Amino acid sequence: MAVGRVGGVVTAFDVVESHTSTMVVDISCNALNEAHVQEITDALEALPGVRVRKVSDRTFLVHLGGKLEVASKVSLRNRDDLSRAYTPGVARVCQAIAANPADARRLTIKRNTVAVVTDGSAVLGLGNIGAAAAMPVMEGKAALFKRFAGVDAWPVCLDTQDTEEIIRTVQVLAPAYGGINLEDIAAPRCFEIERRLRELLDIPVFHDDQHGTAVVVLAALRNALRVVGKKASDCKVVVCGVGAAGSAIIRLLKSKEGSAAPGELIAVDVAGIVYRGRPGLDENLTWMAENTNTENVRGTLADALVGADVFIGVSAPNLFGAEELATMAPDAIVFALANPDPEVDPAVALQHAAVVATGRSDYPNQINNVLAFPGVFRGLLDAHATDITDAMLLAASNAIADVVAEPNASFIVPSVFDASLAPAVAEAVRNVATGAVTSA
Amino acid sequence: MAVGRVGGVVTAFDVVESHTSTMVVDISCNALNEAHVQEITDALEALPGVRVRKVSDRTFLVHLGGKLEVASKVSLRNRDDLSRAYTPGVARVCQAIAANPADARRLTIKRNTVAVVTDGSAVLGLGNIGAAAAMPVMEGKAALFKRFAGVDAWPVCLDTQDTEEIIRTVQVLAPAYGGINLEDIAAPRCFEIERRLRELLDIPVFHDDQHGTAVVVLAALRNALRVVGKKASDCKVVVCGVGAAGSAIIRLLKSKEGSAAPGELIAVDVAGIVYRGRPGLDENLTWMAENTNTENVRGTLADALVGADVFIGVSAPNLFGAEELATMAPDAIVFALANPDPEVDPAVALQHAAVVATGRSDYPNQINNVLAFPGVFRGLLDAHATDITDAMLLAASNAIADVVAEPNASFIVPSVFDASLAPAVAEAVRNVATGAVTSA
Repeated sequence: MAVGRVGGVVTAFDVVESHTSTMVVDISCNALNEAHVQEITDALEALPGVRVRKVSDRTFLVHLGGKLEVASKVSLRNRDDLSRAYTPGVARVCQAIAANPADARRLTIKRNTVAVVTDGSAVLGLGNIGAAAAMPVMEGKAALFKRFAGVDAWPVCLDTQDTEEIIRTVQVLAPAYGGINLEDIAAPRCFEIERRLRELLDIPVFHDDQHGTAVVVLAALRNALRVVGKKASDCKVVVCGVGAAGSAIIRLLKSKEGSAAPGELIAVDVAGIVYRGRPGLDENLTWMAENTNTENVRGTLADALVGADVFIGVSAPNLFGAEELATMAPDAIVFALANPDPEVDPAVALQHAAVVATGRSDYPNQINNVLAFPGVFRGLLDAHATDITDAMLLAASNAIADVVAEPNASFIVPSVFDASLAPAVAEAVRNVATGAVTSA
Repeated sequence: MAVGRVGGVVTAFDVVESHTSTMVVDISCNALNEAHVQEITDALEALPGVRVRKVSDRTFLVHLGGKLEVASKVSLRNRDDLSRAYTPGVARVCQAIAANPADARRLTIKRNTVAVVTDGSAVLGLGNIGAAAAMPVMEGKAALFKRFAGVDAWPVCLDTQDTEEIIRTVQVLAPAYGGINLEDIAAPRCFEIERRLRELLDIPVFHDDQHGTAVVVLAALRNALRVVGKKASDCKVVVCGVGAAGSAIIRLLKSKEGSAAPGELIAVDVAGIVYRGRPGLDENLTWMAENTNTENVRGTLADALVGADVFIGVSAPNLFGAEELATMAPDAIVFALANPDPEVDPAVALQHAAVVATGRSDYPNQINNVLAFPGVFRGLLDAHATDITDAMLLAASNAIADVVAEPNASFIVPSVFDASLAPAVAEAVRNVATGAVTSA
């Protein structure tokens, strides 16, 4: 009752010890957040004769000892097994690879293995927390790779944030892997690292914060446009945030390989609308200025939103509200993806826009990278792909969209648990990579 | 019958297809080596009406697709699971580690994970075959780590052979791991790499080719001395080969932490006996000259063997024979560990020596590093050890020896499949690492 009075839900009550004058019980209950946990703890402590000995947290319990293990695919029951999987038999396998390096994909884990590489500089919304603290995210990512696409992914957390050192380290590690997934590396460093590694390596390099997000956003946009009955080429699209995700979204929208280019595309960052001649543009922003904003308008985010058909935010919380929403075009599409707090309150957005999506799991239409990366790498690995192209990304995006047979305003992307999703994405990527189809 | 006539043993005969005039059969048979496979193939091809369509090799079949996989320890069945193992729940776990780095051992795979690091420069007896071709050995090693001690080991094959770059790369990767197992890195580079990494890192660094071999050799020597009823301090020991393994054996024999030091110890390399003042001694050999050979004798391996109680060879094939063996002391001990061909023919050695050991699995007393490394790392990880000391190595060595309750000339080391071995080694190492015992 004490738990219930402060809004907690008891799910289990186990007696651990019982003595003549005391009892130890284990109470499991659901809480909303850490503050609520404290509130429940205080409520229990306040009861006469009750002392709270220890508070555990299910999320931390899940992480105890880490989330991954390395399993042997070969059985080692006897000397024969040992002599085949290890010395002396293994020597012939090594020699075969030394003689024909392409055999590494046949005779080692390279065929199915991806490195999840981070420098810990831009982890989730937490910022620069470093390599060790980034491990739980990278382990989780690896668990998702396995769960959704059977890909063996390994966390590679680098204790350096020097661009050259990151590039060289990944290059030196690359022979064992069939692909590189860059993760949570801060912009603009991530652009240089990805570009250089793509030149240096003969395996695909994919920065999930850029391309994973772009692939899913374009899939969601494809279906949202279906719902409102508009064509991309007739739309004005505003992308707010020109870091890793925003840049990749804009580049994929503008890709020559695709047909998703909006009629007008405006990029906005903290300094307002990006335009040609704006002071202080770096290499990335210069490209943005040259490839968006055909009329070279200037102004604020609010200015950009006037008449916009689509808002795509990958930036910061609470940037606008009902007033700006009202200036958008009829049947507006609003993707407010800043995490955990969106650019605009989704409840407010829903009163004005026809389709609303967020990065949050507690609203419909969650834009979640897990819709893309497992299937994308499954396809790349199966195709023995040596690089990754816009055509592959667009094919993946269309495949995600098309898993939703009849999109509606609350259903523009499939569920992450849709079993047909990763195979469809993988097939689409594989078909482009192997040349079975030549464009998206 | 055709297979049997050339010495092959058919173990299975499966009909794969049967047509009116043809049949496809799958014949499994045991062969001695690749030449024998060819002989069997030729014998079958020579039969009228028989055509060999494909010859597969069980060792290669074992390696198809690699020998390891990454498994998730957490189940991801629903949104709740996802939100605990990945975003948003994982953020709190990352923050906990950022606030208290020691929590990495509690909340990530660091606790149970070892990097098996090589530059591919001295792989088995194959020499410098490079990173990609070394993968099957490192994968096999990881499989053994898991099989024998439940340790999650991951192959880290570095596409560089620059000492500084190897050191820096391992340093940059280290936060995710609880230990570093260096493997198949050529001498003398391996000495520098190990020494520097031990200074730089707060986790144990163990070069298996050095210390794993030394631990097992000292265990075997301890029991061999029991068998012949001699004390180390009364013995003249000749160590032939002063590369990674030989140097580590000599250093561990001479360790101040131990009591295994022989009365006289002579090191021999390709230039003969190592002595003070010998031209061209490098840093390692200078140490050897200063810490062995009390009378500073000069000469060849044959000279060194005169009156020797123990020969330990970690060098090259076929260096001596019956003549030299006859000059050794009575009840001599001969460890001829060069692989695959020992320094002296073990059959010949057995006619002169009381105890003979090799590195080969087809003779008794195989000196095999797998007796040591799984249990050593199990102990180091369980103790959260930050370094590795001679006392731990000697404790591991004694533990291995003591698993053999009553050694005899054919049984001086336990079977690698002895289930009590790795736990005994782990306990011995853990006890020293945690200070539960203060010396071996």
